[in-house]
Amino acid sequence: MERMNELVMYDLAGADPDRRFSPYCWRAKMALAHKGLPVRAVPWRFMDKDVIAFSGQGRVPVLVDGDTNVNDSWSIAEYLENRYPDRPSLFGGPSGRAVTRFVNSWADRVMVPAVARLVIVDILEHLHERDRDYFRKSREKAFGRPLEEVMADRDTQVLALRQALEPIRATLRAQPFLAGDAPAYADYIPFGVLQWARAISPFRLLEADDPVAEWRGRLLDAFDGLAKRAPGY
Amino acid sequence: MERMNELVMYDLAGADPDRRFSPYCWRAKMALAHKGLPVRAVPWRFMDKDVIAFSGQGRVPVLVDGDTNVNDSWSIAEYLENRYPDRPSLFGGPSGRAVTRFVNSWADRVMVPAVARLVIVDILEHLHERDRDYFRKSREKAFGRPLEEVMADRDTQVLALRQALEPIRATLRAQPFLAGDAPAYADYIPFGVLQWARAISPFRLLEADDPVAEWRGRLLDAFDGLAKRAPGY
Repeated sequence: MERMNELVMYDLAGADPDRRFSPYCWRAKMALAHKGLPVRAVPWRFMDKDVIAFSGQGRVPVLVDGDTNVNDSWSIAEYLENRYPDRPSLFGGPSGRAVTRFVNSWADRVMVPAVARLVIVDILEHLHERDRDYFRKSREKAFGRPLEEVMADRDTQVLALRQALEPIRATLRAQPFLAGDAPAYADYIPFGVLQWARAISPFRLLEADDPVAEWRGRLLDAFDGLAKRAPGY
Repeated sequence: MERMNELVMYDLAGADPDRRFSPYCWRAKMALAHKGLPVRAVPWRFMDKDVIAFSGQGRVPVLVDGDTNVNDSWSIAEYLENRYPDRPSLFGGPSGRAVTRFVNSWADRVMVPAVARLVIVDILEHLHERDRDYFRKSREKAFGRPLEEVMADRDTQVLALRQALEPIRATLRAQPFLAGDAPAYADYIPFGVLQWARAISPFRLLEADDPVAEWRGRLLDAFDGLAKRAPGY
């Protein structure tokens, strides 16, 4: 039986506390909406490690459900599916869950780095002042060069992203959503990556007539425009 | 109720009629084995267009089940799932089927071209003499250069393939098969691509300690070593 607590989620925010841009937090928020679960999404910034120290680690999303806390977007999706089995399914069963993990791996390994290099300075510019130094240093260490250099050739690199999205595009030729006739977690995963960019960058990732853009449009409209209403470009 | 016909499948073969190398035919043969359906896999070569003219097109696999014929590996998998619903499921339900289509799109768009460029001359050398001219001309037109040139830098290009397989590798860190605890069509799709290379090329695609190689080993052993017993390297 469901025993409803107020669900709370720590959600990465920019200088504007309403600007929520983490791709992983977007996955979790779409998953919560899919389950019909209201959540209080608390703005959190990189320097707020102490605020989520209770979770035993330093990254968001962190979901708090009564006495339970869960971090990592995939773990949150699995938690919601197991804890609220009578609400709309995120995976459509064990096989759907297993294969959706492949989508998650693909999005994290292919899509996230391809988008990151296109918007990395835009992220920096939207951060709260006290997050900027940490962000620049940690990301420049990861990329091995100044963030401005990483983003300098984005007009060319965006073509590589569009090419990398071909598996989504080809799938959408056969069905309206990656999860089939209706969206589910397999859709929220790559959608979250696009929503990340949308939240902090005016740079256009997709051409208007791209089937991927049309699919994104349908997901922006989902759940009464949850993602569309969020501050972004 | 099942009414069993002898199932017949036209299966791409090399000069040696037992050397079956099409990645798409391997997907279909693994799917048939998963369903426990014996099949007579008839060797077919590129020049045998007339033999499958009844299917209304010119490519294999073509599956013949009584009065029905189905071509295209994805359509064959869907046909088998719909026609033999009481046998082990290839998809584990509608959601599993929908998300498996993403794996299919990914394998076709990313994995097939990445493997093709590593083994293209090896394919040519294993073809029946009457297929070779067609194969060289059509593939050189597609690549825009001589096949020997395409394959010349394969010691470098194999690193790109290994990198491209990262979404499989990351998924296998969490579960033994892409479909979860046991293999299903989501596994047979990328496995078929590796089996294609194995059938016609001594070139090593994977390092021995790669989790992808271990997963391939488990699939080679599946169905009493169906894929392992097939002529290959």
